[in-house]
Amino acid sequence: MHFEAYMDQRRACVEAALDKYLPRPDQPPAKLHEAMRYSVLAPGKRLRPILVLASAEAVGGDIESVLPAACAIECIHAFSLIHDDLPCMDNDDLRRGRPTNHVVFGEAMALLAGDALLALAFELLSMHSESVSPQRVIQATRMVARASGTWGMVGGQVADMQSEGTEVDADTLRFIHARKTGALLTASACLGAMLSNASESQLLCLQEYGHHIGLAFQITDDILDVVGDVSKIGKPVGSDLRQDKATYPKLYGLDQSIAMAKEEVENAVAAIESLGVLAEPLRSIARFIVEREQ
Amino acid sequence: MHFEAYMDQRRACVEAALDKYLPRPDQPPAKLHEAMRYSVLAPGKRLRPILVLASAEAVGGDIESVLPAACAIECIHAFSLIHDDLPCMDNDDLRRGRPTNHVVFGEAMALLAGDALLALAFELLSMHSESVSPQRVIQATRMVARASGTWGMVGGQVADMQSEGTEVDADTLRFIHARKTGALLTASACLGAMLSNASESQLLCLQEYGHHIGLAFQITDDILDVVGDVSKIGKPVGSDLRQDKATYPKLYGLDQSIAMAKEEVENAVAAIESLGVLAEPLRSIARFIVEREQ
Repeated sequence: MHFEAYMDQRRACVEAALDKYLPRPDQPPAKLHEAMRYSVLAPGKRLRPILVLASAEAVGGDIESVLPAACAIECIHAFSLIHDDLPCMDNDDLRRGRPTNHVVFGEAMALLAGDALLALAFELLSMHSESVSPQRVIQATRMVARASGTWGMVGGQVADMQSEGTEVDADTLRFIHARKTGALLTASACLGAMLSNASESQLLCLQEYGHHIGLAFQITDDILDVVGDVSKIGKPVGSDLRQDKATYPKLYGLDQSIAMAKEEVENAVAAIESLGVLAEPLRSIARFIVEREQ
Repeated sequence: MHFEAYMDQRRACVEAALDKYLPRPDQPPAKLHEAMRYSVLAPGKRLRPILVLASAEAVGGDIESVLPAACAIECIHAFSLIHDDLPCMDNDDLRRGRPTNHVVFGEAMALLAGDALLALAFELLSMHSESVSPQRVIQATRMVARASGTWGMVGGQVADMQSEGTEVDADTLRFIHARKTGALLTASACLGAMLSNASESQLLCLQEYGHHIGLAFQITDDILDVVGDVSKIGKPVGSDLRQDKATYPKLYGLDQSIAMAKEEVENAVAAIESLGVLAEPLRSIARFIVEREQ
């Protein structure tokens, strides 16, 4: 299948499942459910949930049966964006050209919508107990919890916040990005396979793949902030530099950053060589990560 | 054992476990871990985690083996307090006489400390896979996730927020409290037993017990806001009334509210009659809930 058609099909599949699993606005509290849906169902690449499906595929698993897990990851991603945009954090009014959650629903509701999405993610993960070995469901819960909290996304966010206005060295930059964006991407790349009874050695390959695409993703994000098209990335170009954030172009320059992103993609592709033809979508996703324009 | 000594012993046991399971400030990001510990380790009754232990005891379970779950519940409780106190929510500067998390660590860090505590709770729940049936761990994860999100605490908080300044009827008041405080108390009352291989009928008794102590707890909270001793409850007496919040005394008057709280305790005690002598601590806890002064 052509990659673009593959992504479109998978995106439609994820979005139908999200619509099904998100609480409905005809159940109380309606406003909370509207706020949750507003951010999760906003247009997006659905990169993380598609990774979950591709990770299941790569070990011969069934994508239907890991849809709740894919949706759980997208809920966690949306939770992090809602909280990041709040006035006490980045204070962003726009995300991908739409008003941010707190602009539409107010700060208190946005805060609570984020909280409810994080809780919902773990409810969704617990739905896998029928088709999947329960030990694997618990292992997956643990991995996703660690990728979300201080050992992952939240810890990276704090380190990023603390680095603003300071000189950041390469180690700190790696620490920040491995957690802030890398942890959830790595978890996504492992999650589908973990719930499809992958072997330990398959999971190790996918973990390494996830590590490399996480770096490739972040370097590309940093590059797009410098050279991207504002109409595509949906936020002012150069906003990281203005906020004096730690970025790859700041530390390595633009050309070397571009070379580093490409190298990480090569590493990611190499890491899953042993998974053979079933892992082809994962390889295409890795290339897509550095070729995207948003 | 005398009830006060029982509570002191259990509290010490919970606090030692919390200290062990919370991320340490000598690991990065240190400030985040300090903020998490500041709120979780603040002096408290530890009612919810002690309920988890007593729930295990009530069905002949081992309290040591449910300590991670007890700590998970206390992390979720602390997460909810930190977020409730934020400027965009209740904007409280003091909790139990100490500066609130955002006053000490700043708003952004408080937000993230709450987020990290919610994630940590699910990591802790996933630690039960060795001694406990994995199916039960998943069932427990699902119950706690639902008690935390829109079907529980967060949903109740939203309904409470939306009721401010409006005339609240008895049904709405029940909806708010069943979710805002009731859901996590009910989950606590079931959790220990669920992880100790309780039978379905035992779990149903505990669920009913939890429902009644949840109501007793909230009615008592509302009463203490009217008649309590400010030095003991740690917030200004009458603050709910001033904020025009939905409360039992507002809807039923003080005398009837006191009678209702006592009746809920009787109902709670009756619900677990079949559990016999092992459930004695749960009965004492139910009585303590309406007799407490803070």
